[in-house]
Amino acid sequence: MLYRRIRNLREDHDMKQREVASFLNCSQQVYSNYELGQRDIPTETLIKLSQLYNVSVDYILEISNNPEISKM
Amino acid sequence: MLYRRIRNLREDHDMKQREVASFLNCSQQVYSNYELGQRDIPTETLIKLSQLYNVSVDYILEISNNPEISKM
Repeated sequence: MLYRRIRNLREDHDMKQREVASFLNCSQQVYSNYELGQRDIPTETLIKLSQLYNVSVDYILEISNNPEISKM
Repeated sequence: MLYRRIRNLREDHDMKQREVASFLNCSQQVYSNYELGQRDIPTETLIKLSQLYNVSVDYILEISNNPEISKM
């Protein structure tokens, strides 16, 4: 599966792959493979990306078009 | 990480591990390891669980306490 949204989110935040990889504690190559859908994103990484961009995981995974994390 | 909510969701739906594993096309052992947090849940499986129980992935991952998938 292709993770288009993490690429778009990164670009919207004017971040380089290298910077996001550093935040995630992974290599740029591994991060690049996430964006290309060549490597599954581990759950903990999905959560970190959600925190980095302050968007819901449902938005990252294209389950929802609403980036807001629902509060209750 | 422990996935408490997928255990609670399964029990709330009166389903056996065997049944959820069958839905996910994995063995009961693999599914059991998901619930115990001994194996990371792949993204595609998170999405399938979200569909099975009609809850957000954010709820499954305890990012949100709201099970509803946000529509926009």
